[in-house]
Amino acid sequence: MLLSIGDELVLGQTVDTNTAWLAARLARLGIRTLEHRTIDDDLDAIAAAIRASAERCALLIITGGLGPTDDDLTRPALAKAMGVGLVIDPASLHALERFFKERGRPMPERNRVQAEHPQTSAMIPNTCGTAPGIDATLGRCRVFVTPGVPREMVAMYEKSIEPAIREAGGSGRTILTTKVNTFGSGESDIAERLGPLMARDRNPVVGTTVSDGIVSVRVRAEFEDLAHAQRELDATAAEVEAIVAPLAFGRDDTSLQQTLIRMLTERGLTIATAESCTGGLIAGMLTDVPGSSAAMLGGWVTYANAMKSGQLGVDDALLQAHGAVSAPVVRAMAQGAVERSGADLAVSTSGVAGPGGGTATKPVGTVWMGLAWREDGAIHTDARVAHFPGDRDAVRDRSAKCALQLLRLHLLGEDLGQVRWAKPPTT
Amino acid sequence: MLLSIGDELVLGQTVDTNTAWLAARLARLGIRTLEHRTIDDDLDAIAAAIRASAERCALLIITGGLGPTDDDLTRPALAKAMGVGLVIDPASLHALERFFKERGRPMPERNRVQAEHPQTSAMIPNTCGTAPGIDATLGRCRVFVTPGVPREMVAMYEKSIEPAIREAGGSGRTILTTKVNTFGSGESDIAERLGPLMARDRNPVVGTTVSDGIVSVRVRAEFEDLAHAQRELDATAAEVEAIVAPLAFGRDDTSLQQTLIRMLTERGLTIATAESCTGGLIAGMLTDVPGSSAAMLGGWVTYANAMKSGQLGVDDALLQAHGAVSAPVVRAMAQGAVERSGADLAVSTSGVAGPGGGTATKPVGTVWMGLAWREDGAIHTDARVAHFPGDRDAVRDRSAKCALQLLRLHLLGEDLGQVRWAKPPTT
Repeated sequence: MLLSIGDELVLGQTVDTNTAWLAARLARLGIRTLEHRTIDDDLDAIAAAIRASAERCALLIITGGLGPTDDDLTRPALAKAMGVGLVIDPASLHALERFFKERGRPMPERNRVQAEHPQTSAMIPNTCGTAPGIDATLGRCRVFVTPGVPREMVAMYEKSIEPAIREAGGSGRTILTTKVNTFGSGESDIAERLGPLMARDRNPVVGTTVSDGIVSVRVRAEFEDLAHAQRELDATAAEVEAIVAPLAFGRDDTSLQQTLIRMLTERGLTIATAESCTGGLIAGMLTDVPGSSAAMLGGWVTYANAMKSGQLGVDDALLQAHGAVSAPVVRAMAQGAVERSGADLAVSTSGVAGPGGGTATKPVGTVWMGLAWREDGAIHTDARVAHFPGDRDAVRDRSAKCALQLLRLHLLGEDLGQVRWAKPPTT
Repeated sequence: MLLSIGDELVLGQTVDTNTAWLAARLARLGIRTLEHRTIDDDLDAIAAAIRASAERCALLIITGGLGPTDDDLTRPALAKAMGVGLVIDPASLHALERFFKERGRPMPERNRVQAEHPQTSAMIPNTCGTAPGIDATLGRCRVFVTPGVPREMVAMYEKSIEPAIREAGGSGRTILTTKVNTFGSGESDIAERLGPLMARDRNPVVGTTVSDGIVSVRVRAEFEDLAHAQRELDATAAEVEAIVAPLAFGRDDTSLQQTLIRMLTERGLTIATAESCTGGLIAGMLTDVPGSSAAMLGGWVTYANAMKSGQLGVDDALLQAHGAVSAPVVRAMAQGAVERSGADLAVSTSGVAGPGGGTATKPVGTVWMGLAWREDGAIHTDARVAHFPGDRDAVRDRSAKCALQLLRLHLLGEDLGQVRWAKPPTT
C-alpha cells in the first residue's frame, strides 16, 4: 500500500508524482502495489488510514507530512496508530542543526519537531533535506515514512528503504516493465502495426499509451525468475522496436533529445538552433542533456522579425513575400544558424502557436520546421510543415519534438515522410 | 470517489495528473473527494472497484481505459458492474467516422468499440479526441467516464460533466482554495513570517508547500455560502501577500513569466535573453505566455564561448580573465543582448549546471545572473550569484526562475537582496 499525505494532494493543488515512482520501483522487486490512497492533513484520518493499511498488507510506504509546520501531521499520526508517544532522536537533532549551520543560519525552532519519531521506531537519515524518515513496525506490517519532496523521497528510498526491503526478503515474483517510445504516428496506427503482440493473454503483455504526442509501447513481463523476466522483456521490446522503427527513439525515460545528443556526439557533429514559435524550447531540451555542450553550440530565439533578419540574415524580401511562417524562411533561418555558429547542422521553427495569430491560409497550429546541414562544402536545407492540434503549449511542444525527430531521421538517412504529420512544401 | 484506470498508472509508468485536477474542480463545487483509487487493466478488478465505489458515494468519476486497443477495458467493466450488455451508439459511431474523415483517413476497424456503451447509459461527446465518455447510474451513484488523455478529460468535464453535476444539485457546502506563490526564500522562513495565520483550527486554513523552488502558501476556505467563502478566502490571501511581499509573484497557476510579461507589456518595455547554463529555458518560459511577442523580442543561447564572443560581443579578454561563469561575463552578455536586439532590458545566465564542470572555486550549482537595462541614454548592468543545490535539472530551473524574479524586483524598484540566495559580487 502507498499512502500520500497532504491537503494539497487531495484538493488537487499538487500532483502526486511519488506514488507512480514508488510503484514502479516496488514492481521491480516483485512487489505489487495493492492500492494508492491519498489522505488530507487530518490527524485522525491519517492515523485511521495507517491502521487500516497495516492490516491489509506487509509493506506500507507513507510520503509527506514530515515538514516543520503545523500542518505536517504524519509523525503524530503514526505514533497514534502505533499507540506510542513521540521522542526526540538526539542524532537527528544534531544532523538538523548541522544542516542549517552549513547554510550559514541558525535552525528555526519549529524545525525541532523534525527530529521526533514514535517510540520503538528508527530514524532514516535524509541526505538532501531537513526531515529524516521513519522506519517502524505496526503489527505484521513494515512501515516506512519519507518526506513528500520528490528529490528527498527518491534519495531516501534508494539509499535506505530499498536495501531494507531486500534485506527483509523478496516476494518470489518479479515484474519488469519497459517502454519503447515513438514519435511521428498515432496510437491507433502503432497498435494496428503491433497486431497480435497486443493480445491480453500474452506474457510479456504489450500495451500503448500516449503522452504529449509520444506514443509509448509498454511491455510488462511477470515471471518467478528475474533473469527469465529480463530475457522475455528484452525479446518482446526488440520485436516491438523492429515493427515501429524508425520512429522508436529510445526506451523507458530516454528522451528524443538524449538520443539526438548521443548520435551527434558519437559522430562528432555540432548543432545550433534557430527558433521562432518554439521560443527556446528546442535549445532548452538539448541543453537539458548532461554533456550536451560537446554537440550543442547554442542558438537564437528570433521571435521578432527584426531578430530573424538582423541576427540570422533572413532576407527581408523573403519575409515580405512568404511571411515568417513559410518554407523559405525556416530554410533561411537554419542556414543562417549554420553559417553564423559554425555548426554542422541546425534546426529551425516558425509557426502559429496560438491562441491568436491564425489566418485562413495559416491557421493556429501551422508550423514550418527547417533543417540545414553541411555537405560537399555547401550548406543544404530542407523544410516540412505540420498542422498540430491542441493549445499553445501542445503546438509548441509537438513542434519542438517534431523538429528533433526530423533531424534524427535525417541523421539516419531515413525518409522524413515517415513522420506522418510533417508534409513537404507543395511548391 | 475518483477511479483511474491503467496498468501504466499502477505500475508507475505514467503519472496521474487527472485526479488532482478533478479533485480541485470538484472541491469548487463543494464536493469533497473521499478517496483516489488507481486500478490496473483487469476487467474483474475494474468492475469490482466500480461496484465498491458506487456503494460508498453519490458521484464516481472514472478516467482512462476508453482507448481503441485490447487493454482498454473500462467500457466492458462498467457494463459488467451494471449487469447489462454493451450496445453501439449510432451517433457516436458517426462522429468517430467523421473524426477520421476530417483527418483524411479511414477509421481503423478497432476504433469501432469506442462507440459502444452499457445499455441504459448515455454517451458524452468528445470534442477533441475519438473516445466519447459515458454517463451512467449505478444504484444511487452517478457515474461519469472520461478518456485518460488529460486534454480530452478536461474538455469533457468542463463542457458536459460539471454542468450535469450542477444540474443535479449542489452539496450545500463550498470549499474554495487558492495559492499565493513566492520565489526567493525557504519554506521555513515563509512559515515563520506567517506565524499565527498557520494555526490548524483557523478557517480559512493556511499551509505551505514547496515545488521546484516555488514556495506556495495554500489557503482553503470552507463555508456554506459561496460568496462568504470567496470573501474569507480573498481576505486571508491578501493578508498572506502583504506578509510575504515582494516575493509573492502571483496566485494559483500564475507563473513568474506570466507576471513578468504582463508587467513588461503594461509598461511598453521589451526584453531579450542571453543564456548559457539555462540554455533556452528562460526564453522558453517567456514565450510560453500567450501574447508574449508584445514584449519578448528574442534571445541567444550562447552555450559555447565562441557564441558568447561572436554573437553577443563578450570580450575574449573578459572570458580569459574571469572565466565564463563570472559577474563581468553575465553583465557583458546582458549588455550585448540589449545592444543587438534593441530591447529595453535583458537577463543573462552563466553557471555550472553539472553533473560535470565543477571546480573548487566554482562548484556545481554556481550560477551568475545578469541584468541590463537602458536608463538615461546609457545601458546599465548588474549581476548576482547563487549556489543552487540539486541536480542539473534543479540548478537550471532555479537559475531561470531566479533570473526572472531578479528582473521582476528590478522593475518594481525593490532591493534584489530580498531574493535570499542571490548575492552581489564581492569585488
